[in-house]
This record gives sequence, C-alpha cells and structure tokens, in this order.
Amino acid sequence: MTIKDLAKLCGVSVSTVSRVLNDRPDVSPAVREAVLSAVRESNYVPNNSARSLVLTSSDAVGLVVRGVSNPFYSDIIKVIGREIDAAGYTMVMQQISSSADELEAAALMEREKKLCGLVLLGGRWDYSEEELRRITVPFVCCSYTNTFGSLPRGCYSSVTIEDSRAAERAVDELCGLGHTRIACLMAERDDRSISELRYHGYLSSLGAHGIAPDEALAAVAGSFDMADAYEATRRLIASGAEFTAIFSISDAMAIAAIKALADCGREVPRDCSVIAIDGLTFSEYVRPTLTTLCQPMAGMGEESVRILFDVIEGRSANRHVIVEPVLRRGASIAPPKK
Amino acid sequence: MTIKDLAKLCGVSVSTVSRVLNDRPDVSPAVREAVLSAVRESNYVPNNSARSLVLTSSDAVGLVVRGVSNPFYSDIIKVIGREIDAAGYTMVMQQISSSADELEAAALMEREKKLCGLVLLGGRWDYSEEELRRITVPFVCCSYTNTFGSLPRGCYSSVTIEDSRAAERAVDELCGLGHTRIACLMAERDDRSISELRYHGYLSSLGAHGIAPDEALAAVAGSFDMADAYEATRRLIASGAEFTAIFSISDAMAIAAIKALADCGREVPRDCSVIAIDGLTFSEYVRPTLTTLCQPMAGMGEESVRILFDVIEGRSANRHVIVEPVLRRGASIAPPKK
Repeated sequence: MTIKDLAKLCGVSVSTVSRVLNDRPDVSPAVREAVLSAVRESNYVPNNSARSLVLTSSDAVGLVVRGVSNPFYSDIIKVIGREIDAAGYTMVMQQISSSADELEAAALMEREKKLCGLVLLGGRWDYSEEELRRITVPFVCCSYTNTFGSLPRGCYSSVTIEDSRAAERAVDELCGLGHTRIACLMAERDDRSISELRYHGYLSSLGAHGIAPDEALAAVAGSFDMADAYEATRRLIASGAEFTAIFSISDAMAIAAIKALADCGREVPRDCSVIAIDGLTFSEYVRPTLTTLCQPMAGMGEESVRILFDVIEGRSANRHVIVEPVLRRGASIAPPKK
Repeated sequence: MTIKDLAKLCGVSVSTVSRVLNDRPDVSPAVREAVLSAVRESNYVPNNSARSLVLTSSDAVGLVVRGVSNPFYSDIIKVIGREIDAAGYTMVMQQISSSADELEAAALMEREKKLCGLVLLGGRWDYSEEELRRITVPFVCCSYTNTFGSLPRGCYSSVTIEDSRAAERAVDELCGLGHTRIACLMAERDDRSISELRYHGYLSSLGAHGIAPDEALAAVAGSFDMADAYEATRRLIASGAEFTAIFSISDAMAIAAIKALADCGREVPRDCSVIAIDGLTFSEYVRPTLTTLCQPMAGMGEESVRILFDVIEGRSANRHVIVEPVLRRGASIAPPKK
C-alpha cells in the first residue's frame, strides 16, 4: 500500500492524504477522519526514509528551464519529459529568461504545484546553502553544477560536462593546428556560469601551450544571444586586433561569429578558424560545417531523471555525474595562413 | 464562492469537489458527505454556463507539442507557458514525435492530469468529429487548424497563418524576380498538413503566373528533418532537372537546402534563389541570410491562451484566428542568371 493507493481508496488526492499524515491544518475534520480511518484499516506504513513519499503531496516533477530560446535545450526537454512520463509522474514545466532567478521560480513552483522533485535545466553556479533552504524537495542541476557555490555536495545532484576541460580540448585543437592568436568569444568572463568556466579552460589551454593571453582577444558579448555575439565579433574585427582563430563558448554564438566574419570579408576557415562547444543540429548545416564538442544531450536528460527518481523513491543519495563531450569534426578549422 | 474556494474550505482538491458535484463513484462516502455539507452551508452555486468550472477538476492546462525538435516551437512554448502562469493556471506539457497521435496523447493527458483545457501545438489537419469525442475540455489548435477534416468549427478554436496564402506570397516573390523554373522542397505533398497546404500555395502561385508545374521540380523529403531536406535537395540536383529557385516549406529545410546546393557547387542566390516560411532566429545568421515569411510566434502563443481561457471561463465561444506572416528580406533571392 502506497500513499497513492491510499489516496485512491479514499477518493482524495495524494496531496490531501499527505496533509493529513503531516498533521497540517488545511484539511476539514470530516476528510481528516476519513483518511485516518483508511490508514488504520489498511496496512499503510509511512516510509520515513523515503522522505518525499510522505512530505510531498503529488506526483508532479517540476522542470525549470532557464534561457528558453537556448536551442541546446530542446532535445534535453524532450527526453526529460519522456522519462518523467515513463516513470508515471507528471512534468510541470516553467521556462524563465536567462536573467531570471531559477531558485525563486523553483521555490514558488514547489509551493504552488506541490512538487515531489525538481530538475533545473540551466542556472547559476554559485548557490549558497541558505538560498537553497527555499527548496525542500530533491533536485538535480542538469547541464550545470555548483562549482562556484558553497552548497554541500550531498544536498543536490548534478549532471554536466566538465566545462573548463571541454574548452581546453577545443582550444587544444586550435593550438595543435599551429594557431597562437586565438580569440575567445564569450558571454561574460566572470558570470560564474559556463561562460566563465569555458573562458578559464581557454586560458588554461593557452597556458599549457606557452601562449600568453592577450586582453585584446577577449570578445565579451554580454549575453548568449546570437545578435550580441554577432556584434561582439564585429567589434573584435574593427578593433584591429590580430587573430587567426576564434574559440566560441557556444555553437549559436559561433554561427553568429562566422556570419560576422563573412560580412567583414573574412572566410572561415581560410582567414579564421572557428571552434565551439554544444553540438546543435543546425551546426551541421551552416557553411562551413561547424567543428564543435557535442554535449550528449539525450544522455544528460535521461541521467538527470534517473537520479531524481532514485533520490525521491529512496533508492540512493544525491550524486554528481560528469559526462564526456564528443568532438564532431566539421570544416571550420584549418591551420593558420602563413 | 467558486469551486476553488469550496475545495479550500473542505481541504480537498478541486478535482475531488468536482467528482462529488458530478456524482462520480470514485469518492469515499465520508469525503462526499463532507463536500456536500460544505456546499449546503456555503452559497456555492455551480455555474453551468461556464461548464468547465464544474466538469473539470483542476487548474492544469495541457500543452501537447508535436514534433519536439521543431525549432519553430521554442518561442511559442515560452510564451504559452508565461501566459498560462500569468492566468494562475498550471501548464502540464507533453512533447511527442511528429509521427505520434496528438489526440491520443491529449486524451490520455486529459484523463490522467485532470485538465481544464488544452493547447495542441502542431497536429493533424483532418480530425473527424468522432475522434474528438475523446477530448472533453476546451482546446485550441496552435499553428494549425482543421482544413481537411470534418470537425464542426464551433467545437474547437485555432490560431494559424493561412499556409497556402503564405506559400503563394513566397512563390510570388520568386516569380516577380523572373523565375519560372521553381522547385518546391516539401515533407510530403499529401500529408494533410502544412506541407500539403504550402505545396498547394506553390502550385496556385505558379498557376497565377501562367507557369505549368513540372513534376520533376517537386522535391519530397519525406519529413521535416534537416537531414532529409538535405538529401532531397541533393537528389533534385542529381536528377538533372533544371531550376533557378527553390521554395522551401520551412526555414530549417531551406537551410539544409542551401547547404546541399553549396556542397554541389551552386551558390545562393547567384545560381539558385531560396525562399521559405517560418522566420527562425537562425535564419538571420546563415549565409546568405534567408529570405522568409515570418510567423508571428509570440502573438500566436498569446492569442491561443487568451482564447482558451475565454472559453474555459465562459466569456466566449470557440473562435478561429488567422494571423499574417511578415516578409523578412534576407539575401537568398535574386533574379535568375541570364
């Protein structure tokens, strides 16, 4: 007998049973008595180790997507939705802008929708323990983790590539071809997000190859938007700084950069190589085909949901999974012109 | 006093109150008596004209997205989610493949999640009245309608561009430049969907310009996928058929076509013009910038939700809204080579 069976037996929602079991005031005396009587007559034993079965009140799993126009997310959302459905839960999704606060959205959603768990798709990398008090259900950070924060690792789960390492690999490819004047196209250099992490991977690869970083080659777009990436690339070109390659922190930004280079008369890869991280379908159809490190999107979505239900259903503690990106060779990188 | 107030008063869910009011069997006697007693003691009067307030059982609005990797949908999903939230309802989303049955998914979702309304984003254009018996809550077809079906117009709502007219406008642009050998890149010519409608618009524009359609210029990809569009374009080129322009039924397919043309040594628009319908952000960053008729995505999402709540809350009957696409001039069309 589970809390769901009990709810069915009484003809009330799981949330009502949960409120009765947790002695919450917002249940009428008659309903309370009906539920407690069913508990007495059944063999239902609240499973306190699987905390969520008792404390939470529905089969709803929240998905908060931050940065909704991010084309990188659509495949992950699809897989997460499919896996939540397959597990017999209901997905409740909310999409917020990339400047909004996912914790506030998640906390509100948890309260209003009575969630039993949360997947956060995209978010800040610097949570404090105090901020997370607002979230009382198990949650998984998908495609990011808490590198810059103070959150104890045991109180959340995450599934992500190692962003700085992926950036190192991308820039290693450029250095391996002989490039030494490599620009970095990023959103911000200190946003405590993938932009900062991938920028650090870029610096780290340069260091490993004995190349001194040049401030003039840091192209800060201010956002992940294609329009801003396009303008940042045009500014980089207009600055007169010399470069033979661009490492872009995302595919979409790289596509905008290739367009900006072309509009300024520079052909990729003849005049400038471009490499990125993400692996969008679109990147296979731009000209030249983008060389990029592909994140294993479907696998990340599946793993996030698997972890979440392991934690919700008491099968395991929180865990942190690192997945490996795969280099997809296109035609956007070549040795520098002599 | 609304059904929500009543549910709060009794400490049960709206769905439980609804089941009691509708005399459904799946409620325990004690809970039934508690709810009925509250109804007697309160001034609650079931509002039969606003049918959904009584018959439905939650604040959940279902969104069924068919063809999840369709990049055209991400902006609409974002707007629909925001508007549903703003109205104080909960969005429950399900994404299905473009070959899946959205009515089956919607009917199952309605039953399982106790929806009060549905938005179907993408779907078949040929519903029969009988098929729709499975859906008992108000629903809006977003980005499509029931052109090929027998469903009475009063029993559903829709928000869509006029697809055949949009295709006519696109092909008119090509004819206006002097093209007469115009290929049509489509998913299927008789799939009773946008592909068929836009193909008919193509034929209709040719007819209006006195151009006889050539079977050899109908490039059928078999799906809306970029990979299939790429292969269909290569087959068209390999067939030896002469053409100076391609009308593509979607932006994503057009981008794949431009890539295929380039890979076969044909430059756009010098050797071949390409025009499409949709208006993706990506289309502004391909080379050359795609000329396309943009669907007003945000407006379509907003209008769909507005109509749905008007119907759910009894303010209006179902209605059908046609929105106008806007031509975004890129650099992918030019007069044919002499």
